[in-house]
Amino acid sequence: MPLSPDQIAEIEAARATPRLTLRAVSEGMERHLYKAYPVLDHGLVRVIDYMGDDGAIVQAARVSYGAGTKHVQNDEGLIRYLMRHWHSTPFEMCEIKLHIKLPVFVARQWIRHRTANVNEYSARYSILDREFYIPEPSQLAAQSSVNNQGRGEVLSGEEAARVLDMLRRDAATAYDHYEDMLSQEGQQGLARELARMNLPMNIYTQWYWKVDLHNLFHFLRLRADNHAQYEIRVYAEEMCRLVKDWVPLAFGAFEDYRMGGVTLSAKALAVLRRRLAGEVVDQESSGMSKGEWREFMEVLG
Amino acid sequence: MPLSPDQIAEIEAARATPRLTLRAVSEGMERHLYKAYPVLDHGLVRVIDYMGDDGAIVQAARVSYGAGTKHVQNDEGLIRYLMRHWHSTPFEMCEIKLHIKLPVFVARQWIRHRTANVNEYSARYSILDREFYIPEPSQLAAQSSVNNQGRGEVLSGEEAARVLDMLRRDAATAYDHYEDMLSQEGQQGLARELARMNLPMNIYTQWYWKVDLHNLFHFLRLRADNHAQYEIRVYAEEMCRLVKDWVPLAFGAFEDYRMGGVTLSAKALAVLRRRLAGEVVDQESSGMSKGEWREFMEVLG
Amino acid sequence: MPLSPDQIAEIEAARATPRLTLRAVSEGMERHLYKAYPVLDHGLVRVIDYMGDDGAIVQAARVSYGAGTKHVQNDEGLIRYLMRHWHSTPFEMCEIKLHIKLPVFVARQWIRHRTANVNEYSARYSILDREFYIPEPSQLAAQSSVNNQGRGEVLSGEEAARVLDMLRRDAATAYDHYEDMLSQEGQQGLARELARMNLPMNIYTQWYWKVDLHNLFHFLRLRADNHAQYEIRVYAEEMCRLVKDWVPLAFGAFEDYRMGGVTLSAKALAVLRRRLAGEVVDQESSGMSKGEWREFMEVLG
Amino acid sequence: MPLSPDQIAEIEAARATPRLTLRAVSEGMERHLYKAYPVLDHGLVRVIDYMGDDGAIVQAARVSYGAGTKHVQNDEGLIRYLMRHWHSTPFEMCEIKLHIKLPVFVARQWIRHRTANVNEYSARYSILDREFYIPEPSQLAAQSSVNNQGRGEVLSGEEAARVLDMLRRDAATAYDHYEDMLSQEGQQGLARELARMNLPMNIYTQWYWKVDLHNLFHFLRLRADNHAQYEIRVYAEEMCRLVKDWVPLAFGAFEDYRMGGVTLSAKALAVLRRRLAGEVVDQESSGMSKGEWREFMEVLG
Repeated sequence: MPLSPDQIAEIEAARATPRLTLRAVSEGMERHLYKAYPVLDHGLVRVIDYMGDDGAIVQAARVSYGAGTKHVQNDEGLIRYLMRHWHSTPFEMCEIKLHIKLPVFVARQWIRHRTANVNEYSARYSILDREFYIPEPSQLAAQSSVNNQGRGEVLSGEEAARVLDMLRRDAATAYDHYEDMLSQEGQQGLARELARMNLPMNIYTQWYWKVDLHNLFHFLRLRADNHAQYEIRVYAEEMCRLVKDWVPLAFGAFEDYRMGGVTLSAKALAVLRRRLAGEVVDQESSGMSKGEWREFMEVLG
Repeated sequence: MPLSPDQIAEIEAARATPRLTLRAVSEGMERHLYKAYPVLDHGLVRVIDYMGDDGAIVQAARVSYGAGTKHVQNDEGLIRYLMRHWHSTPFEMCEIKLHIKLPVFVARQWIRHRTANVNEYSARYSILDREFYIPEPSQLAAQSSVNNQGRGEVLSGEEAARVLDMLRRDAATAYDHYEDMLSQEGQQGLARELARMNLPMNIYTQWYWKVDLHNLFHFLRLRADNHAQYEIRVYAEEMCRLVKDWVPLAFGAFEDYRMGGVTLSAKALAVLRRRLAGEVVDQESSGMSKGEWREFMEVLG
Repeated sequence: MPLSPDQIAEIEAARATPRLTLRAVSEGMERHLYKAYPVLDHGLVRVIDYMGDDGAIVQAARVSYGAGTKHVQNDEGLIRYLMRHWHSTPFEMCEIKLHIKLPVFVARQWIRHRTANVNEYSARYSILDREFYIPEPSQLAAQSSVNNQGRGEVLSGEEAARVLDMLRRDAATAYDHYEDMLSQEGQQGLARELARMNLPMNIYTQWYWKVDLHNLFHFLRLRADNHAQYEIRVYAEEMCRLVKDWVPLAFGAFEDYRMGGVTLSAKALAVLRRRLAGEVVDQESSGMSKGEWREFMEVLG
Repeated sequence: MPLSPDQIAEIEAARATPRLTLRAVSEGMERHLYKAYPVLDHGLVRVIDYMGDDGAIVQAARVSYGAGTKHVQNDEGLIRYLMRHWHSTPFEMCEIKLHIKLPVFVARQWIRHRTANVNEYSARYSILDREFYIPEPSQLAAQSSVNNQGRGEVLSGEEAARVLDMLRRDAATAYDHYEDMLSQEGQQGLARELARMNLPMNIYTQWYWKVDLHNLFHFLRLRADNHAQYEIRVYAEEMCRLVKDWVPLAFGAFEDYRMGGVTLSAKALAVLRRRLAGEVVDQESSGMSKGEWREFMEVLG
């Protein structure tokens, strides 16, 4: 993700000119504003703007005239209470706007989260850059044999080399032809909206993505999870780091109740109570399927 | 809408402590932050927070690394282009959070706009204040005889007096009984979540309402319109004044293309073209119904 | 909820004329279509239309050309898997349209679920009926002393009588005055959009409400819960009965994983594992607050 | 779009078994159910399910106990009134579920319409078919010289041949390598979620897409428009044909007020009124920019 000198200059200019505001300010987030944090080989996450802080959550929950409470401890207790009891609307009162650069196949997964605002760089209007995601060898994983949508072991050296070679070569060829088709030297030049269809899905796109904190937490719970595909998880993890500095109390509650929390079914809860009462329960007497039982045993550790 | 001394102090405290930020700042909006602008007899509109300015719309449309263009004129041209061609996503990149105090029957209409975040003061949890909307005599209108959902002339003096008396008396009685039911002196005291049902719909409630600029414009187009009920229109008009100072270029485009604009049907367009070509067209030869024709004639002025 | 003869005739007419369709049909739901199921003293729930059945969930999850699997058992396993792993989109592929009659203070809570379509009877356009919710004596509960938004014991006889009297009397007076204000005999008659403000919030309104199954389950989880206010919970419970007949497999999974399920925080999970390993853990050594500990103990039973 | 014998058999089986229902039935739509209508070279549109008909719009607008009015003429008048005055909620009471097969670059544009439900065939879980969109020579257009996101003239023969050759060759190579990477013969086989990134964006994907009629109309207005990219417009046009048979009255109003309608700005309206009053107005005296003036002249014909 090497930024151009112009881009670096624009970011530095944006960071060089603090201005006065009467709005709620998150000092933790001000440190991150506009900076380009690299993700994958050419991707990035940048915070463009934010609205609100931990106090704004408390303030909205109380529909108050002033700011949050006088004591951070009270704010934390209330925020934890709201999170624990699924009061989602106060968390919707914080908003964040991010600039994300990401491979198209990741973007296609990302956009399924509908409750957000998006402006994507248009390949109908503009020409995409020659930037493709090529995985690190450590991420070149085999198909999982137990989970249709998962990864198994890392590919061995020779197979990995063949794969990387194909990915690199096909990307290069596709982009060369993209440029050939667009070229207006000695020919008319194909419309951009058509030429783009030749590009593979590991090409990078970028967008502005704006979302409220409640929906961001929902995104992070699903995408920073172990079961999420690695290539979107690294974005989610980078965003977790930023959100933690923005709204530390809300993020703490989110970590405890959502990220680190588990959901038990009625059947699982019944088994748990029997076990706590001293009974020995196995899968057959649990009423749970084998898959559910295995997942339940993982939860119990 | 007399604020309590505590509320005034909280607002003044919030306005007394500017802080530094690297975010986009709208000077026009900073002047309004936290101030309570009165609407109706006890209502108010207050801006609690905002995200973005005119430049943020341009920046998002371009998915750029820096701020908007160098020239305000270019920004305005692009913003007008976006509005004219229904490119709504760049306008979604600005966000505003308002504190609104409003009668319940207005709140019920307002909430039908679903693409917004809301935290309402809870009458299940807290006790509502004794504040009711009583219309000005100039707003005590008769039922329209031509439009089922409209107003006709202002009521004459005696009838108006009777109406005002009923509204005032019923509100006072209902609130007295609300307090009687809640009271725990010499009795158990009815649950708040039940006692509230006795209150009439002109009682005031309040909420924090957060919305993006695109959806706010949609709200304003419908609610600042002449056909909107007066009691919600005055809120929309107050908000127009604030939005104009926040994002003057976007608001100018909105005024031209949406508020002041009109939509013509295919039939109306066909008639218009015939008239511009010199033909005389009346309702019968227009293919339009009488109602459509009347509305069309109003458009042509 | 006495229906008028005309309404009964309309419902019977609608049920008298089965037609042929090639769409998925839920026999369980066909039995309920159009019938008015009473809720509270004047409320009702009616199914007006539905789209899809259990098979439609499976079919969408597989993006298949045909219907669901050949075996109900496979359908159930897949539906349970989808529910357990928070795959919400297949459940969005079923849709239901309901006609609901409910008190305004319940409608105000209900409408906070934004991902649904609503057409409400307009008191701006039409005149509301003289129907008010008056609680059963068994539901006249005192304010809870431990929970600001909850109910305590049932009111004693004399206090209950006073409350019921106030509710009945204020409703009658308000409606009499509503009619007085609207009357055009010997006066102009106040506009409907103004007169409605005098009505208390226990008056009944009605609407058509359309929602997909995923969002309906979210509604039911929150509103059929013990902590929900009784007056909305009875609607949710009636809807549970209907949904169970519509999509029995999906409803079974919902009951097990959502309604009967519990969420444990990371802290609670750590304590649980320590206890299962034989350790004695109390609130002080748990790292949980007293409130959290009490809720956790309730979960463990 | 050659369907497999299995697929054809599944469609025929679905169409062979009409069942009885008490729900609203649209005869026009029953004729289309399940049938695969081809779009582009391998794409298709199939109606999987629908809810409601023209009568359901009227019924919801009236919150009535029975079906629509007795007279089709009244239904039409009300539906036109609702459309003309932007009453969108009654149109939300109809719903449609479609099975769409479409190139990925079209899917990326389509998904920007957020108010819909989607289940897409997962290339993380399954293996995509070897099907790519290759434009007809008549659709191989040059980049527009006046509009950055538009098409100009059709490419001349030799250039067209080169483009088609590149598109075909790159697609074939990418798919060969996709299969090579996935293969588990003599190697581990790359994970599906990784291998898919090598595929170009003209590969076909498919999804179930469910949307209400109001939001579908919004989609069709933008995507069946002349300015929409050809490759999505042909889907929109096919869908228009289906919707017309489903809800003919609503579609008629949509055609008149939305598809064939135009929006004039306040400035344009002022100019129009001056011209109708006999005044000669040109661009300079209009207050409009050159671009706006040109678009306005096109509207006037």
